[in-house]
Amino acid sequence: MPETITLYTAKVCPYAHRVELALEEAGAPYNAYQIDLQNKPQWYAPKVNPASKVPAVAYGGPATSPESPAPESTKIAESLVLLEFVADLYPNSHLLPKDPVLRAKARFFIDAVGTKLNPKFFAFVMRGEAGGAEGLLQGIEEIQKLLPEEGFAVGKDYTIADASVTPFLARMEVSLKHDFGAFDAGEGPKVYETLQSDPKFGRFRKYLSDCKARPSFQKTFDEAYLLETYKKRYGELRAQKKKND
Amino acid sequence: MPETITLYTAKVCPYAHRVELALEEAGAPYNAYQIDLQNKPQWYAPKVNPASKVPAVAYGGPATSPESPAPESTKIAESLVLLEFVADLYPNSHLLPKDPVLRAKARFFIDAVGTKLNPKFFAFVMRGEAGGAEGLLQGIEEIQKLLPEEGFAVGKDYTIADASVTPFLARMEVSLKHDFGAFDAGEGPKVYETLQSDPKFGRFRKYLSDCKARPSFQKTFDEAYLLETYKKRYGELRAQKKKND
Ligand SMILES: [Ca+2]
Repeated sequence: MPETITLYTAKVCPYAHRVELALEEAGAPYNAYQIDLQNKPQWYAPKVNPASKVPAVAYGGPATSPESPAPESTKIAESLVLLEFVADLYPNSHLLPKDPVLRAKARFFIDAVGTKLNPKFFAFVMRGEAGGAEGLLQGIEEIQKLLPEEGFAVGKDYTIADASVTPFLARMEVSLKHDFGAFDAGEGPKVYETLQSDPKFGRFRKYLSDCKARPSFQKTFDEAYLLETYKKRYGELRAQKKKND
Repeated sequence: MPETITLYTAKVCPYAHRVELALEEAGAPYNAYQIDLQNKPQWYAPKVNPASKVPAVAYGGPATSPESPAPESTKIAESLVLLEFVADLYPNSHLLPKDPVLRAKARFFIDAVGTKLNPKFFAFVMRGEAGGAEGLLQGIEEIQKLLPEEGFAVGKDYTIADASVTPFLARMEVSLKHDFGAFDAGEGPKVYETLQSDPKFGRFRKYLSDCKARPSFQKTFDEAYLLETYKKRYGELRAQKKKND
């Protein structure tokens, strides 16, 4: 029986969201504690994660408040480490198949998300780099071609492979649709339209829609909060850009 | 009972070496097939790894020659995916502990190798960047501080955490000691000397020596071959640099 899990998270952070999805999918009891990333509590780095990032988990030890986790609890950081950790704690959940080959496929998919999709997402949405739209669409194609004809990344079950990508795809969609990004004004909806209508992205559309339909996602994704945050972040960035033009 | 494993590898490649170490440590029967990275066989990308890199594994299917792996065999790439795969195939080896917390520690260590040590290794040894020596020593300190007082990365057993770093540390040592790198002439032995004698690196020295003492390492590391390869690679680079000065 797994011990108490306190998850240090932040609604805006896709890495932290990965772990929330895994915990929800496993049906794991956990306490989620929101860290304000713009104004981190002083106890966070010394008591939880020296790297001062979310996600992090305090696991086990005597019950305490999240603000002063027990020194006896184990502190674990890094989203991919935590996805595997949740799958290990709940070996009978569907988070990872039992078959070593399918497990390898899940991990290969996770690697592709980190090396082929996310760098393109950051380049276009967060940095507005030239050629970023094409790059992002290519990154999505790379992920799409790893998907089986139906279901999730490695079959009918939603695994840590899907949990690794869902938070990024959902945030990407919000950014594009509402034109909140470091890209030039109007660029977001253009890419969004391509993803919505180009037959080439049909498998991707179905996949994203299946991921978003999960109760785990419904429960952990706060679109209104993200919209507000992005509006502020990118609104200021655009105003700044305009002034510099 | 795991099926037949063909490992596509190259003596020079630290990523491929990771997987050889894991297979040796697991006592797994496998066929190692050397890929000449300077002159890759035409069948390699279409039949084994579309990314055209080593390591890759052909797993299962009917027995064939490595040059024409059976279409029925599963092809798996990416060194860290393969480390986990070998640990999954041999769950009773010591490659990963059973305890989820210790497994998380192993994976956190692997992450640190990839994000904190290896970029510094590449920057100094392979690109000769300014400040590279200090950066590399800092990277080694980051890894050193994750080590327990004795034994390997997560305890007395040699795990995939250790297999993930050993190939890089061993190659680094050869480069530094023999002054083969993209750094300025004489810089390698200076850093080597620091690592050999500075009390600050005592735990690191013991760790590297323990890793190198493993029969798995003895069997899979060809120092003479590396020396010859590095001499050629960096000798030409230095001659080129001198000409441009
Ligand atoms: Ca990584």
